[in-house]
Amino acid sequence: MRHTKVKDLLSSTTTLHEVNAKGWVRTFRNNQFIALNDGSTINNIQCVVDFENTADEILKRITTGAAVSVTGTLVESKGAGQKYEIKVAQLEILGDSDPEKFPMQPKKHSLEFLRENAHLRVRTNAFGAIMRVRSVLSFAVHNYFQQKGFVYVNTPIITGADAEGAGEMFQVTSLPIDHLPKNEEGNIDYKKDFFGKHTNLTVSGQLEGETFAMALGQIYTFGPTFRAENSNTSRHLAEFWMIEPEVAFNDLDANMDLAEDFIQYVIKYALDHCGDDLKFLEGRLLEEEKSKPQAERSEMTLLEKLNFVLENNFKRVSYTEAIDILRDSTPNKKKKFQYIIDEWGADLQSEHERYLVEKHFKCPVILFDYPAKIKAFYMRLNEDGKTVRAMDILFPGIGEIVGGSQREERFDVLVEKMKALGIDEEELWWYLDTRRFGSAVHSGFGLGFERLVLFVTGMTNIRDVIPFPRTPGNAEF
Amino acid sequence: MRHTKVKDLLSSTTTLHEVNAKGWVRTFRNNQFIALNDGSTINNIQCVVDFENTADEILKRITTGAAVSVTGTLVESKGAGQKYEIKVAQLEILGDSDPEKFPMQPKKHSLEFLRENAHLRVRTNAFGAIMRVRSVLSFAVHNYFQQKGFVYVNTPIITGADAEGAGEMFQVTSLPIDHLPKNEEGNIDYKKDFFGKHTNLTVSGQLEGETFAMALGQIYTFGPTFRAENSNTSRHLAEFWMIEPEVAFNDLDANMDLAEDFIQYVIKYALDHCGDDLKFLEGRLLEEEKSKPQAERSEMTLLEKLNFVLENNFKRVSYTEAIDILRDSTPNKKKKFQYIIDEWGADLQSEHERYLVEKHFKCPVILFDYPAKIKAFYMRLNEDGKTVRAMDILFPGIGEIVGGSQREERFDVLVEKMKALGIDEEELWWYLDTRRFGSAVHSGFGLGFERLVLFVTGMTNIRDVIPFPRTPGNAEF
Repeated sequence: MRHTKVKDLLSSTTTLHEVNAKGWVRTFRNNQFIALNDGSTINNIQCVVDFENTADEILKRITTGAAVSVTGTLVESKGAGQKYEIKVAQLEILGDSDPEKFPMQPKKHSLEFLRENAHLRVRTNAFGAIMRVRSVLSFAVHNYFQQKGFVYVNTPIITGADAEGAGEMFQVTSLPIDHLPKNEEGNIDYKKDFFGKHTNLTVSGQLEGETFAMALGQIYTFGPTFRAENSNTSRHLAEFWMIEPEVAFNDLDANMDLAEDFIQYVIKYALDHCGDDLKFLEGRLLEEEKSKPQAERSEMTLLEKLNFVLENNFKRVSYTEAIDILRDSTPNKKKKFQYIIDEWGADLQSEHERYLVEKHFKCPVILFDYPAKIKAFYMRLNEDGKTVRAMDILFPGIGEIVGGSQREERFDVLVEKMKALGIDEEELWWYLDTRRFGSAVHSGFGLGFERLVLFVTGMTNIRDVIPFPRTPGNAEF
Repeated sequence: MRHTKVKDLLSSTTTLHEVNAKGWVRTFRNNQFIALNDGSTINNIQCVVDFENTADEILKRITTGAAVSVTGTLVESKGAGQKYEIKVAQLEILGDSDPEKFPMQPKKHSLEFLRENAHLRVRTNAFGAIMRVRSVLSFAVHNYFQQKGFVYVNTPIITGADAEGAGEMFQVTSLPIDHLPKNEEGNIDYKKDFFGKHTNLTVSGQLEGETFAMALGQIYTFGPTFRAENSNTSRHLAEFWMIEPEVAFNDLDANMDLAEDFIQYVIKYALDHCGDDLKFLEGRLLEEEKSKPQAERSEMTLLEKLNFVLENNFKRVSYTEAIDILRDSTPNKKKKFQYIIDEWGADLQSEHERYLVEKHFKCPVILFDYPAKIKAFYMRLNEDGKTVRAMDILFPGIGEIVGGSQREERFDVLVEKMKALGIDEEELWWYLDTRRFGSAVHSGFGLGFERLVLFVTGMTNIRDVIPFPRTPGNAEF
């Protein structure tokens, strides 16, 4: 008899037929009630064991974490909290779980302990929910772009280009690094490396993505990107997944429209498809916040916060306006900011972004038209000669979730900028070709996928929303 | 006026209204007819320029590769091969393309030349089609698994584990490799490396995927994987995308059913959603084969071949049966094989796989129950003690497209196998935990995505179905 998934059993329309379920024991109460979970849903199905007619040695093996197969009749449940249960006729232990040794006992574990057991934490309610939500959000991303006719592009992970300067890079090599081959000048002979040159892990697929947008019109990437930065924070990972759409003929306004519409779509998609998981995570957050002083608790529950993002336009504010607001703000005047804002041109720190989003506007904010000096070389220079058509989207509790821009489409202006910054034109010959041949206005942005998952799940540490986090000192599994 | 995509213009239901289109000039005939493409479809829209009332200096700039914006009336076309065309009222050159310099002139280019211009080749019909088909196939992959309730899992790209031995690995490091820090013993001090240890790029997400399948039930990965093998062939890449589903409680038969159903689904999805592109690629292949001797030409066209896979079950053959067939085959007897098959236990080479698929069975073949000695440590040992529950799916023209197995779920058997092969138990403590706690029968497979794209597009070199191929000596862009 083929087993039926718990999710399907719980949404049955008929009862009293024989069913088989397979899964893992979450709890076993009174020698009688198994809470069985198979990962198809956060909900367990209760399996009622006829303990009087079951051998003691079997009952003893029904422990948290054990894999079991139960066959029996699906009946309406008299217990609270569940519609159906299985009246077990036959029970088989598929794999034992020694209660003295299994780390995931049904009690509260610290998030740090769970991270050290990333291969098992997904067997808990919270991490099962997070990983299902993450998966559904990924699918929402593809759905959104594919419906609109965007082409999914897998830009390279290993790259010979290191021009964007988005961050420190990891080196990739096949050379034996304890016996490096040297050339005649005594330097490392990269001709002997796999690719015949020095290569790194990509920090962004944008530049390659642009070359495809200038042929296919609308493209998006969704793949891993890397930063070798020693940031031990709750918002940074050395390996994370990034989504980078790029659209020919879009200016910055159209780019903002796209980003806002996209984010609202994927959040709505999660609300529509992950109701049970999000409700659980909302409860988890409320529980967690009980231990905090009133002033530090959220004003909204998780679901309220998600709906708020759907129902309100993102506030669009120029960098110049933002500086005025920050300069006049109480924390700035009272010198409560670590970095005091006193003049135009200052780079915004996380504290400023959070003030704007969480205190001043109290909604997602799109900042645009930043000073050219604090932004990347490929951003379109405005007519004022000092700002560029950049945008950042800031979210409450998360900070920057999107960074994007209209790209500099004018060959001469771009080359001049590269020269001024010492960026090698030779190395980026192919990127410059997009401006040499059939150039046009185009725009795009990057969204750090884990930051989105953080926002939607209400978790606070980015290490808890990716299966196996990579951070300084951490590459276990 | 917002521009309309060429694809939407060509499927209009009304005419005689004003439209704007933006795209790139493919050709410009008779100073009058622009074939305009914007990447939304393989088809161009014809734009008819009123050359008598257009300045010569503008007409001169309408060259292959130039980006233009045309505004005019959508009318029914009198020309052959298109339903609609735009009668141009206004034309703007957005970006020039110097015909002396633009490499993608409308003539036949060698595939090798196009690879060297991977950033521009996507502006050709063939590569536009290939990349759109690739994108739709990716989406089909997600669609298939998400509809069935599989959870998408992003297994790590940078890994500290090197136990699978699926192939040579690239090392990842943040150490300055020309000034490596040494420890007291004079060895490289990996404690100073970013992750505090020696790390590599992943060759497979399977082992991590298994830990998630044993919690969530059904999972799949779809991400980049790497091999640092010096294989300069038309079937190998150093960086490629792999799909790895893993299902708790599935045995090898269920695994074969899943793989077959999955492959048929994604091919059908491509046929349903990429009609124009596939028809173009079919024509391209016919054209290409004209230059070949009759005997080397395909018996089926591209679409016939794809439909054949949908309409026929894959032939399931045990390794032992396959050896019998090969031993008795004409090329074996006549010593035409490079590697003569004379006894059970021999590893099958590409020539043998192709014989089975292309000459003997003439359909996709699933080989199963391979000798334990030639397969990986984690595969389930059969009761005969000498074969394992492995399967490979072989496709005509491609060879191995899927490799999978039922996994060894018995802790003791697995540990014994690891010991025999010298695989470090300590390093794989987390993998062994899946067998320590709630172990169960489970199975999965890996499908090399580019091999699937190769099959569906009818291309013959794997470097032509990924945007920026990574091969020995090649990491440009």
